[in-house]
Amino acid sequence: MGFLDELRAVVPVSEAPASADRSGATGDGPPLAIARPDTVDGVRTAVRLASAHGVPVVPRGAGTGLAGGAVAGRGELVLDVSGLDRIVEIDPVDAVAVVEPGVRTAALDRAAQEFGLRYAPDPASAKISTIGGNIATNAGGMRCVKYGVTRDAVLGLDVVLADGRLISTGRRTVKGVSGLDLTSLFVGAEGTLGVVVGATLRLRPLPARTLTAAAAYDSVAAAARACAELTRQRREPSLLELLDGATLEVIDRAQGTDLATRGRALVIAQADGPSADEEITAIAKVLAEEATGSEHAVDPESSERLLFARRMALPSIERFGRALIEDICVPRSRLAEAFEGVARIAAAHDVRIHTFAHAGDGNLHPIVSYDGPLTSEVHHAGDDLFSLALDLGGTVTGEHGIGLLKRNWLAREVGPDVLDVHTAIKTALDPRGILNPGKGF
Amino acid sequence: MGFLDELRAVVPVSEAPASADRSGATGDGPPLAIARPDTVDGVRTAVRLASAHGVPVVPRGAGTGLAGGAVAGRGELVLDVSGLDRIVEIDPVDAVAVVEPGVRTAALDRAAQEFGLRYAPDPASAKISTIGGNIATNAGGMRCVKYGVTRDAVLGLDVVLADGRLISTGRRTVKGVSGLDLTSLFVGAEGTLGVVVGATLRLRPLPARTLTAAAAYDSVAAAARACAELTRQRREPSLLELLDGATLEVIDRAQGTDLATRGRALVIAQADGPSADEEITAIAKVLAEEATGSEHAVDPESSERLLFARRMALPSIERFGRALIEDICVPRSRLAEAFEGVARIAAAHDVRIHTFAHAGDGNLHPIVSYDGPLTSEVHHAGDDLFSLALDLGGTVTGEHGIGLLKRNWLAREVGPDVLDVHTAIKTALDPRGILNPGKGF
Repeated sequence: MGFLDELRAVVPVSEAPASADRSGATGDGPPLAIARPDTVDGVRTAVRLASAHGVPVVPRGAGTGLAGGAVAGRGELVLDVSGLDRIVEIDPVDAVAVVEPGVRTAALDRAAQEFGLRYAPDPASAKISTIGGNIATNAGGMRCVKYGVTRDAVLGLDVVLADGRLISTGRRTVKGVSGLDLTSLFVGAEGTLGVVVGATLRLRPLPARTLTAAAAYDSVAAAARACAELTRQRREPSLLELLDGATLEVIDRAQGTDLATRGRALVIAQADGPSADEEITAIAKVLAEEATGSEHAVDPESSERLLFARRMALPSIERFGRALIEDICVPRSRLAEAFEGVARIAAAHDVRIHTFAHAGDGNLHPIVSYDGPLTSEVHHAGDDLFSLALDLGGTVTGEHGIGLLKRNWLAREVGPDVLDVHTAIKTALDPRGILNPGKGF
Repeated sequence: MGFLDELRAVVPVSEAPASADRSGATGDGPPLAIARPDTVDGVRTAVRLASAHGVPVVPRGAGTGLAGGAVAGRGELVLDVSGLDRIVEIDPVDAVAVVEPGVRTAALDRAAQEFGLRYAPDPASAKISTIGGNIATNAGGMRCVKYGVTRDAVLGLDVVLADGRLISTGRRTVKGVSGLDLTSLFVGAEGTLGVVVGATLRLRPLPARTLTAAAAYDSVAAAARACAELTRQRREPSLLELLDGATLEVIDRAQGTDLATRGRALVIAQADGPSADEEITAIAKVLAEEATGSEHAVDPESSERLLFARRMALPSIERFGRALIEDICVPRSRLAEAFEGVARIAAAHDVRIHTFAHAGDGNLHPIVSYDGPLTSEVHHAGDDLFSLALDLGGTVTGEHGIGLLKRNWLAREVGPDVLDVHTAIKTALDPRGILNPGKGF
């Protein structure tokens, strides 16, 4: 009996080849099949059989990744774990959730809200992405600036190893130092070391109030200076976003707004929690110093109106062309230089780049938009963006991952000795190399 | 030329056998020698030579560990890196510090304060312990409840690998997902995977205000209920400590205070930041509900007076006998059960146990005090404490580490498959097993 027959006997399998993600990357041919187990035992069996037959396994959640991490190639088994989608438990006293990997990020956040809690990480894909995918990529979002990234929310994991064994890492307590931090090792490993089948997550108090301020500037440099000034004055916004002029124009074009008439850059900030009023007033004052205009929302509706521009940025860009979504991160103090560098790169390659940033983290999303197929100009612009990030002491990916697309750049960022350590750990945990081969590193 | 001669030619070496830590654990005989390099190259050379000669290396900072992680045995080389003690840089805009491992934790915090920043992790040993030791054990402290543990403050590391190669992990940016999280893997690894020779650390804004409240209770159970109620009401204290009656009595005896007249348990809480006033008022109200008496400090001096009892707890206990300092952590909701369990264990073995806890983290320090040599009763009490922690869904060490002393208990906590993964990673990174053998796992 062949691999697929054995697999079919125990796990739902379909031959539909769907295996792309939102990056546009594709594999080198159709994958072998898609297994859709809906139990942990099903995942274990699939991995054990794949291991026995030497079949590569590509773990998959909702397929919303932006780096090709879930893209499967010829002869590979897609292991879709989105059927494991139960919220097993929410403990309101310990502020902990236990979930399966297929739970949608926003669904967990909603469930937590009923207990006055929330799941803090909020990637833009939260409505459609899964917790498992968030863990695989160590996803970020707009709240990171105050609440940290996915890794900061993960207390423990259930992981199926390459040989089908199931281990539990971490713990349910908020502190603990027994043994190596395997939890953090699996978070962000893009499915190359094990398949996450369960997670114990830390929830946070739902803030009583969230208030918003926005300010327009006549240049991105002035906007970036305002953001740096917030850090210098030790303010702690719960959200700090910066949109450049090109992004404001495309939002106006798509949404009928008039953002670009106010300035060439927009900064949106939020403060939350018991000191939200005091904090947003202080933040708005700093933002107003060099602004051409500023606003300060006093209720949830006007807060949401100010955030609308940010939420519509990517959909608006995508309405007028295809988009290469980039994700570089620089030290916060280099934000203005990063924006200047992006503008230089756009001019040098004669491509359209719209840039918005999680400014409080120094995390820029320069979106290279293009029509038709990906040209070499667009490719070269992307490469120059990565060079720029490294030149400024940053990284080629702040929150999307290495996946299939940035492997060469990872090597350049971390160097051969760190790559050696990656390979040694990969070989130790997956000696036959069946878990998501060719991804991550 | 033998190992020591080669070593002496390049690195300061002394033959003084000092190799204990504060746990009281000792090695199986005198170590070979102590190397005291004061440069990264010196560390690399020492490790390379040790590797070539197959000599075990025990990295060492200030020797303030509580689990025997830095205790060296017969034939082992103590590698004292406390001479690498420079604060290389504090960047006030990025709120980042770059330090060598021998910097004292409190010294970094003090240096950061000049820029309106602080280094948040604050183990009780902060004045005497080093950043390198803090990183090796993933040290905690009283501020963890709001600001997280050492791992949450480490952005990147410089690490000398077992073969003497130097790698840099992580980055200077606050976000980044390029490659595996090697930084978190080395934090808390107790020197078993590499020797930390540099760290890039995240600093936090120094809070403008810190306010304190304290409340006495007629039982530990009532005090634990008050702490749980704070979590349930989504309050976020920046410090939350609980002292039991035995601890209050010994403090009174040593310091001439009258704490035990107020109740059989004391809770101390702090709030900081822009909403400190509002937050401490709300916290004090919750604490007062079941209290036999409560106070609310309005200035730094009276705050410090309320915290005095907590700071004097361990010194007071140690004044009247030797102390086995334990460190278990349970889910926050199980805090009352943990205290009850500790009392049962003290009675069953007829030993004195004083317990204080970082209540906001569920992290208890039951201190078994004894006179003369460590009796089997004390040992058995310790074992029962670990069983208790595991029975309550907790861990055998919240912030001190596994070291030499808790290796058997680690195995029981994590099980054979997780231990296998530990061994696989250890073998991958240190194939000859020269780095701190017999520690951690």
